[in-house]
Amino acid sequence: MTNSTTDAPGQRPVGVAVLGHGTVGAEVVRIIRDDASDLRERIGAPLELRGIAVRDLSYDRGVPAELLTTDAEALITRDDVDIVVELIGGIDLPRTLVRAALDAGKSVVTANKALLAAYTGELAESAESHNVDLYFEAAVAGAIPVIRPLTQSLAGDRVDRVVGIVNGTTNFILSAMDETGADYAETLAEAGRLGYAEADPTADVEGFDAAAKAAILASIAFHTRVTANDVYREGISNITAADLTSARALNCTIKLLALCERVTGPDGKDRVSARVYPALVPREHPLSTVSGAFNAVVVEAQSAGRLMFYGQGAGGAPTASAVMGDVVMAARNRVQGGRGPRESRYAKLEIAPMSDIMTRYYVNLQVADRAGVLSAVAAEFATRGVSISAVRQEGAGESARLVVVTHRATDRALADTVAALDKLESVIAVTSVLRLEGSAE
Amino acid sequence: MTNSTTDAPGQRPVGVAVLGHGTVGAEVVRIIRDDASDLRERIGAPLELRGIAVRDLSYDRGVPAELLTTDAEALITRDDVDIVVELIGGIDLPRTLVRAALDAGKSVVTANKALLAAYTGELAESAESHNVDLYFEAAVAGAIPVIRPLTQSLAGDRVDRVVGIVNGTTNFILSAMDETGADYAETLAEAGRLGYAEADPTADVEGFDAAAKAAILASIAFHTRVTANDVYREGISNITAADLTSARALNCTIKLLALCERVTGPDGKDRVSARVYPALVPREHPLSTVSGAFNAVVVEAQSAGRLMFYGQGAGGAPTASAVMGDVVMAARNRVQGGRGPRESRYAKLEIAPMSDIMTRYYVNLQVADRAGVLSAVAAEFATRGVSISAVRQEGAGESARLVVVTHRATDRALADTVAALDKLESVIAVTSVLRLEGSAE
Repeated sequence: MTNSTTDAPGQRPVGVAVLGHGTVGAEVVRIIRDDASDLRERIGAPLELRGIAVRDLSYDRGVPAELLTTDAEALITRDDVDIVVELIGGIDLPRTLVRAALDAGKSVVTANKALLAAYTGELAESAESHNVDLYFEAAVAGAIPVIRPLTQSLAGDRVDRVVGIVNGTTNFILSAMDETGADYAETLAEAGRLGYAEADPTADVEGFDAAAKAAILASIAFHTRVTANDVYREGISNITAADLTSARALNCTIKLLALCERVTGPDGKDRVSARVYPALVPREHPLSTVSGAFNAVVVEAQSAGRLMFYGQGAGGAPTASAVMGDVVMAARNRVQGGRGPRESRYAKLEIAPMSDIMTRYYVNLQVADRAGVLSAVAAEFATRGVSISAVRQEGAGESARLVVVTHRATDRALADTVAALDKLESVIAVTSVLRLEGSAE
Repeated sequence: MTNSTTDAPGQRPVGVAVLGHGTVGAEVVRIIRDDASDLRERIGAPLELRGIAVRDLSYDRGVPAELLTTDAEALITRDDVDIVVELIGGIDLPRTLVRAALDAGKSVVTANKALLAAYTGELAESAESHNVDLYFEAAVAGAIPVIRPLTQSLAGDRVDRVVGIVNGTTNFILSAMDETGADYAETLAEAGRLGYAEADPTADVEGFDAAAKAAILASIAFHTRVTANDVYREGISNITAADLTSARALNCTIKLLALCERVTGPDGKDRVSARVYPALVPREHPLSTVSGAFNAVVVEAQSAGRLMFYGQGAGGAPTASAVMGDVVMAARNRVQGGRGPRESRYAKLEIAPMSDIMTRYYVNLQVADRAGVLSAVAAEFATRGVSISAVRQEGAGESARLVVVTHRATDRALADTVAALDKLESVIAVTSVLRLEGSAE
């Protein structure tokens, strides 16, 4: 059979070791075994599974027993292994194993955002010094191609902003709260029952997962090393049914956003801002329609304008699709020679302090039901230069509330305003403060 | 300054020749000149503009005169040119020049879909035999990364379907007709005035442009060489204001779609279907919300599920963004060694005959206003096994009409039915026949 790839008879196979056999690992193994003939054509050589490292050999995983091993270190350093696929989760063990693989001259494909957001520097440097590939398309937004478009397709453009819904659990919860009017605790419990939230949902609902992804996106978009520690982070556990009701009244919904922005400071220097928080998003914004466990990433670049990528951000098969794309690319590089793009960190932008970041705000206040309250509240905003876009009074008597929406202001000015409001005699409580993203001005 | 790319002092520059200085060419030249320092870091060597081939030297283009030449052949074969960017348009001249560039060992970046859809075979073979890159991200959907995600990110997946809105002119016209209720001729004239339609709009409105893009998408998605001649094509010039009204009544809009599908024939063999036609799309389908000059491509793959890519499909800056992404990748390959993915055509699927393709249909009939018409019409559908999903009677007397929506049926069965309806005494005319895509069953 003639074909276009380098498929000379006797072409040396490309050996793959898979670390971890959970939902994604099992799917990756299935594809390597079931689609062997397509993969061979696309790579130009056979892709051969050398082994699967697992912790527990005691039950039947539906794969030949001789492929399974508990000795990951021995598996990855085998001479006939070219590519190591890390799908273990956690940080410390995968860090050791990925380092060992790179140091042994193996290319690595990983879906581990937490690992990358913490140690991308040492891993990228090891990959470079051993001239191997480190691919991680599956680490952000599952099956949705985001890393490769940012790294390659936009390599000749200047990215200004990346805004994504990159955590399915929180998006499922917020979408459900918006649809049903139920409160947070109830909806989280329901998400757990349906398999959309883990037994310990902290990493998702407190924004750690999204923050790791924001760090990865910001690093790539701005050619600067950004770690999870550089990302400002708020979770969704304080969002109430009342917040969603107020959002609806403003023709908005609430989404947990990962935002990566190029911001120009007062000194004229570009800085990077990476942050994760729940925000009001206008219903006409494309991200507002991303519901349930779906993910979407909007990229704004100087020449390209606004691009949006949408799809399934998690799950065994979608994540395996992204992993296998990386495996095929790494394998092609082995066969044809060459390397994928290396880490690009030349811009070395500083991280912008959160207090300088400007957004619009929604502030919900429980207030005394008497004359002069609005004027006292408005004065506190005005004193700090926070311009008010709209105010609405809701309820009466003990449930009297003011909903204030501001124009763009710095985080510092808003925080100062909220602190001052809290001390006002006529303000019973500042019930919630949320940012408003994706609207004009 | 330390940095991550191979930027040794004295690194040989990568030379670029740009053919054509229209909207896109001028923008590409601007980026190469204005963003030189970023491009150098991303490539690992300086990117240097060697010259711009134009037809007419007689006016000031705002670039140094010594860069301009009318001798494209001499420019592309210069020893210090590594990458040729073809932005001329047309087919014959670019074919000659691209061939000459590839044969001279230059990598080529082109946005020319018509050229690729006709001659991708000879161009890809020349690129392969000279071991150079042939990149064309800008040829489909402008700034939206589609080629690279399909070629690389989905390299380990099995694509079943690609459906896109890939022509801005027709999408602008159909969106405007939907919003204003105006008829086709009037809206086309308006699109021309606003710069969304060319003086001769044939390539856009008759679907030739979309068909070229469908050929490119189908080739890549299905690892099979598909040319523009293999694409079934209908344009939008017969779409009437009445069709859009009927679509609205069915909670649909009308879009010119490029569809690429893997279809399994009665013999169990996979075939490729590539086709372009206006179709009714339900308002809840993500493609229905893509309006104006925007483009979007939906990809359905076995593991990834449904992905959507959205953005600006045309215009100088967006197209230049895609071109420059390709230029940077081709330049990196020059510096680091290696090659981008070659043409993948191993699957060699046959083209499915249009008559076998199954879709749903909307049929609009002008009928005599008398008893028994519906039964006579329904009988013609039933005889040919075309199952009716809904029928609506509209108007009365001379303007009596029947709107029939079918379940899925083959193109052959539907065409036979329409021919029979045309001969029915009670049918005055078959006013329009459109396909319905993106709905259940």
